[in-house]
Amino acid sequence: MRKLLHTELLEKRLSHDMAISAKKHPIILIIDSVRSAYNIGSIFRSADSAGIEKIILCGYCPIPPREDISKTALDADSTVAWDYMKQCKDAILDCKEKGYTVLAVELTDEGISYDALEARHYPLALVVGNEVSGIDDACISECDGAIEIPMYGVKHSLNVAVASGIILYEAVKAYRNFNE
Amino acid sequence: MRKLLHTELLEKRLSHDMAISAKKHPIILIIDSVRSAYNIGSIFRSADSAGIEKIILCGYCPIPPREDISKTALDADSTVAWDYMKQCKDAILDCKEKGYTVLAVELTDEGISYDALEARHYPLALVVGNEVSGIDDACISECDGAIEIPMYGVKHSLNVAVASGIILYEAVKAYRNFNE
Repeated sequence: MRKLLHTELLEKRLSHDMAISAKKHPIILIIDSVRSAYNIGSIFRSADSAGIEKIILCGYCPIPPREDISKTALDADSTVAWDYMKQCKDAILDCKEKGYTVLAVELTDEGISYDALEARHYPLALVVGNEVSGIDDACISECDGAIEIPMYGVKHSLNVAVASGIILYEAVKAYRNFNE
Repeated sequence: MRKLLHTELLEKRLSHDMAISAKKHPIILIIDSVRSAYNIGSIFRSADSAGIEKIILCGYCPIPPREDISKTALDADSTVAWDYMKQCKDAILDCKEKGYTVLAVELTDEGISYDALEARHYPLALVVGNEVSGIDDACISECDGAIEIPMYGVKHSLNVAVASGIILYEAVKAYRNFNE
């Protein structure tokens, strides 16, 4: 067994222009007021790898172009479509109007498990919130529901970029299974 | 729908002492020469949440106690068991000797998909490597196999803490499904 060579990876890799026009999984990630450019950059990188439609940055999220975002994103901020909307609530309502099911990634009193997505949930918009305070209650109440990652330890949260990666990949996997 | 209150989260939360003695999923994460304390801290936090057995830090990984690790880990570096072994190869051999299947998280010429874990792979040790260079070839050749996260975008990698989170949660989910 050996690692793939850089040339072999390049053969598998979508070109920049192809990536922008390639068919994406019908998943949007709404990010509300995540403070760290490192987290935003890391999420862009995950969004590129997972092949999702779009990121919507809200509130006081740092937004591209910024060197610290691009560096952590390995430039995925130029291959992933993104928007900025000041109010997270407006982003949620906009997605709902366009037919997306909007689920808050949050521990709530009525969430589904992250591996319980169904075909009816797509197109899907997921909402993640601030590193410390999570998603505002006013935004949560606009969502169609919530989805949560199980916690088996002492803490009750993951880093927001890690949580986004876990849930995006799960959402992509479920979507692809439904559409095989 | 509403967010759970802090008191409700506390009720669900394992205490520090319980966490250390709680039955863990039979999964070890070997981390070779990840440079960033931020990534190490974030991985500790994921390891706590996923409820895995142990982290083995190798090479030039920053190791606890360090304030930058604890801060990012939200102190999970005190609830997750960990070891340090200078040579990643020794950590791999040690796990194999103890009956673990050791899989490199890496794009190789013969990897399985991250969602193709089987009951026979447990107890399971996963290896992740440096942010830029990945896992050394000498270590890869000691592993029983490789496991990879599918890449649908322009880039061919995820942030190492994000990749670790995705694969740990997938490994935990698969294990729990096999043992329901």
